[in-house]
Amino acid sequence: MSEAKTPDTGRRSERSHQAILKAVVELVGEQGYTRLTIEAIAARAGVGKQTIYRWWPTKGALVLDAFAALMGDVAPLPDTGDVAADLRGVIRATVAELGAPRFEVPSRALTAESQMDPALAKQFVDTLLRPNLEVTKERLRAAQKVGQVARDVDLDVAVELFFGPLFHRWLLRTAPLSESYADTVVDYALAALRPRKSPGGRG
Amino acid sequence: MSEAKTPDTGRRSERSHQAILKAVVELVGEQGYTRLTIEAIAARAGVGKQTIYRWWPTKGALVLDAFAALMGDVAPLPDTGDVAADLRGVIRATVAELGAPRFEVPSRALTAESQMDPALAKQFVDTLLRPNLEVTKERLRAAQKVGQVARDVDLDVAVELFFGPLFHRWLLRTAPLSESYADTVVDYALAALRPRKSPGGRG
Repeated sequence: MSEAKTPDTGRRSERSHQAILKAVVELVGEQGYTRLTIEAIAARAGVGKQTIYRWWPTKGALVLDAFAALMGDVAPLPDTGDVAADLRGVIRATVAELGAPRFEVPSRALTAESQMDPALAKQFVDTLLRPNLEVTKERLRAAQKVGQVARDVDLDVAVELFFGPLFHRWLLRTAPLSESYADTVVDYALAALRPRKSPGGRG
Repeated sequence: MSEAKTPDTGRRSERSHQAILKAVVELVGEQGYTRLTIEAIAARAGVGKQTIYRWWPTKGALVLDAFAALMGDVAPLPDTGDVAADLRGVIRATVAELGAPRFEVPSRALTAESQMDPALAKQFVDTLLRPNLEVTKERLRAAQKVGQVARDVDLDVAVELFFGPLFHRWLLRTAPLSESYADTVVDYALAALRPRKSPGGRG
């Protein structure tokens, strides 16, 4: 078969690429990361193993790509001027994502296995999680500039006030997640970050 | 060997009991829950398998007992009248516990494997986690009664404002945990829960 970049080859490549990423996410959900093999991915995606080896240097790189595709691009948060509304948007979207089976099952598997594999965990956090935390911090930084969030707030702590409770509830299944829960978390977390009248009165 | 409850037999039983619980925690840290076998526990603890089968009906029950012993008894939080100081105490203690290797390694393993085993996860949460959340809620409820925490606060959401950020940071290793971090989380979370002057002004 010709390797020339005709339109047909390009379309076939793109289809194979998508089929591989989809197979990876499904198989991580079914079997976990450790037991995932290139053979199984190739079989599920209907491609040759060499295709996978040509495109990805390691299993870890492939899994990160597959989860990045699953989670979609990270975009800056909107800035409508209403910080509560903008944050409700991102926290509601996170709740919806955590509850969607196509996302939930493989994400639990990857989070679980990351515990036993700190190098994978670091890549997972740096590549997939931190960009989402950063765009949220960026929105809070803008709110600081207009006096909606106190200037002395540590934004690294602040951002985990929004995502930490969600993650705790989701991972430990302490209670169901819902849109109204998302809104309550945003309200409470923003109340924590408001400028205070009394100087130094955060404690 | 006599089964009569002489003082010597009692001491021997107690030693075996403690050795078994210690072996379980060590082995969960080393191998995870799934691969844990009664044979390996018996060998590590220096007891016969029958001793273990006599005392615990299932592997799950044994692991929960071992982690309950590791985590210690759940006591009500002190109520010194200073809700910030009382909560700093429990959150600092949680940070110390999460950072202690004898606790950290097996806890990560159990948290990870709970993701693949919802029944184990539920027992783990109900037996080990929820009592700690409940005593914290109880302290917040007392603070509501004296006007230090707003009466309309949902305490199930509130309690995860304290523990959620810690857990997110610890499990995902987004940043190190420290005592000053613990204090900051308590300060922010309490600021979120304070009564407001304007009625309905939580949003």
